[in-house]
Amino acid sequence: MELPSQPSVVINGTRLLARIAELAQIGAIEGTQGCSRLAFTDADREGRDLVVTWMTDLGLTVTVDAVGNVIASTGNAGAAGAVMAGSHIDTVGTGGRFDGNLGVLAGLEVIEATLAADIDVKRPLAVAFFSNEEGSRYPPDMMGSLAYVGGMSVESVLEVEGADGTIVGDELERIGYRGPAPCPGAVPHAFVELHIEQGPVLDNEEIQIGVVEGVQGISWTELKFVGQSNHAGTTPMALRRDPMAVAAEVTVAARSIATDLGGPQVATVGSLTLHPNLVNVVPAHATMTVDLRNTDETLLREAEKQLMNSVQQIADREDITVESRSLARFEPVEFDKRVVDSIEAIAQQKGLSTRRMPSGAGHDAQMMARICPTGMIFVPSLDGISHNPAEHTDDEDLIAGAQLLADAMLALTEVTW
Amino acid sequence: MELPSQPSVVINGTRLLARIAELAQIGAIEGTQGCSRLAFTDADREGRDLVVTWMTDLGLTVTVDAVGNVIASTGNAGAAGAVMAGSHIDTVGTGGRFDGNLGVLAGLEVIEATLAADIDVKRPLAVAFFSNEEGSRYPPDMMGSLAYVGGMSVESVLEVEGADGTIVGDELERIGYRGPAPCPGAVPHAFVELHIEQGPVLDNEEIQIGVVEGVQGISWTELKFVGQSNHAGTTPMALRRDPMAVAAEVTVAARSIATDLGGPQVATVGSLTLHPNLVNVVPAHATMTVDLRNTDETLLREAEKQLMNSVQQIADREDITVESRSLARFEPVEFDKRVVDSIEAIAQQKGLSTRRMPSGAGHDAQMMARICPTGMIFVPSLDGISHNPAEHTDDEDLIAGAQLLADAMLALTEVTW
Repeated sequence: MELPSQPSVVINGTRLLARIAELAQIGAIEGTQGCSRLAFTDADREGRDLVVTWMTDLGLTVTVDAVGNVIASTGNAGAAGAVMAGSHIDTVGTGGRFDGNLGVLAGLEVIEATLAADIDVKRPLAVAFFSNEEGSRYPPDMMGSLAYVGGMSVESVLEVEGADGTIVGDELERIGYRGPAPCPGAVPHAFVELHIEQGPVLDNEEIQIGVVEGVQGISWTELKFVGQSNHAGTTPMALRRDPMAVAAEVTVAARSIATDLGGPQVATVGSLTLHPNLVNVVPAHATMTVDLRNTDETLLREAEKQLMNSVQQIADREDITVESRSLARFEPVEFDKRVVDSIEAIAQQKGLSTRRMPSGAGHDAQMMARICPTGMIFVPSLDGISHNPAEHTDDEDLIAGAQLLADAMLALTEVTW
Repeated sequence: MELPSQPSVVINGTRLLARIAELAQIGAIEGTQGCSRLAFTDADREGRDLVVTWMTDLGLTVTVDAVGNVIASTGNAGAAGAVMAGSHIDTVGTGGRFDGNLGVLAGLEVIEATLAADIDVKRPLAVAFFSNEEGSRYPPDMMGSLAYVGGMSVESVLEVEGADGTIVGDELERIGYRGPAPCPGAVPHAFVELHIEQGPVLDNEEIQIGVVEGVQGISWTELKFVGQSNHAGTTPMALRRDPMAVAAEVTVAARSIATDLGGPQVATVGSLTLHPNLVNVVPAHATMTVDLRNTDETLLREAEKQLMNSVQQIADREDITVESRSLARFEPVEFDKRVVDSIEAIAQQKGLSTRRMPSGAGHDAQMMARICPTGMIFVPSLDGISHNPAEHTDDEDLIAGAQLLADAMLALTEVTW
């Protein structure tokens, strides 16, 4: 894509930083910079209310759809035909203040700065926050944007049961964010998501901007191993059917699979629950999750195959029953080459150092890529730390990313596909 | 010990079975034969109240000591100089109805049958239930009997904090079982505990009575691994400091150590907790327990040494901090040869099939062995299942065990040491 001449605005960095700080007060984790605003909790509602107030104060048209996605637009037709920014404001249980929130509040800042500049913009600008991007309380992650693009029905979303036994539909109703706007939603002209990298690459290489070419494929599997609970002192080792022994071996195997496949392949056992979970009882059952990711779909499938082979072998040896279910499965995504090239060209024109890279994390942008030309901008994460209250990005990087988002969005208002 | 001529009583098996069934209604786990009466809970209180009512109805002198141990005696001096039976009535979270309860209710039945027979018995008979034998809610296990024999101070017991944040002293007070009787308690003439085997040996070999020669040594260690929480998608495998990976390898190592040492050595990881325990977050820390047991103290120490070596090596490789603490440590115990021989001789005289064996589980009798001649009688556990609602012992085995307890206790009233 040729870079068209474009209208230009300067974002207000101070205002952006102040909003990030104010939103971070909600669900703040004492003694840290971090936040806990799990999807559809009271803290999530408070965060939503605050951002919606900011949107309304700018005179934007604000809509809430059937799964709680919120879109604010300068136009009358919502996201339809708009150049749209967006991300999420829910966090993991022990999250940082930038993950998701940056993309939403930077999008809002782009709109405020553009309105203040009183310039001629050929298309509406819009900003969204999508429901339950993290998937920490309810699978799958990126639930809201997945529903927005028609990848999951509203009915299916509302029926999802969380680990705590609550149901998405009930919780959405409870916090007042089961809205009337249609879902799937309107198709924007283009979508750009600004996000922290959540990995160590930009920080290690001292590069300001990551131009994201695509997103790793994600495979989440829950494995439940059912064995024979028994007394820890009286059951000879050879006669045990111990689900924890199986879970441990599968964890070791998952790590070996990732290391042996190499490259961007990662494997994580982030959750494991034993029952009855007592020091002197061989557990009756163990439930664990395995998170596999790769940029290459063929390799990701290979990792899944190797994992399930290992699971079956290990469980058979211990005479353990296996129940497995997929909690989430997304193929790797490639972003629109024209949007990616455009973001890179503008960044370089502005004198920013850039690096093309894949995203290791899932993002709402990968869902939006199904319905419109989409790109992403990364800014550095100190030491790559994320999903952790210690998550940090320097102010100047936050502001540089938001300014690039403004430049890219305004450039995209000039483009026709 | 020569078998003296002894007074003889016939226990009432129907009454014993009815009491076992009635006590099992308290904390009953729906749809199973099992019970959940964790120490110092409301269910534990209800169970205690019921057994105390039965003790009082027999006209026995009932005392409650400072850690909640309850002793009923036919004499005026409590357990002092008495031939004493006893065990516990607390259960693990998902326990059976016989573990502990059998020994207490059989002891009560021996006393009731003896009183009804109106025979001359040279010493008082006593029966006890000791507090918190299971240790499921508060470490260590066998807490009450350990305090009774002076192995743990009352102050230390009352200060113990449970996994749920509650304190033993508060909970004892709350359920009304922080009593006035002195602790450590009076020294009995002898102590005999009837218990289900909780292992598969008697059932497999179709033997009616296990003559217990001693108890395996027990070593409980809690290991906390502190790593670096991070995003599961963006952190390359080589840069991870993953406490779950360490916990899994340590679990595999613990099992190998037990298998390699062989014999009666067992190792169990019954409890593991991850934080934050989310599918897409490399955990910040993992806390697990390792339960090691052996009948030989030297081998048990070897197992402990090998475990801690493995822990250090694995944790160092992953750059993980280790915090370890001992939750319980008991050396193997040998019961009094005279009591053991006597139980075996009486059982054989009555035509019961017997087998000498160690106990794989810890029991209150191992504490009592510190202060008086002590023995134990095992009856078979179906398939060795215990610490499980499916725990089962046939009625005829329960009754045979209780009758042998009566015969042994009465024989011991005739003995002088």
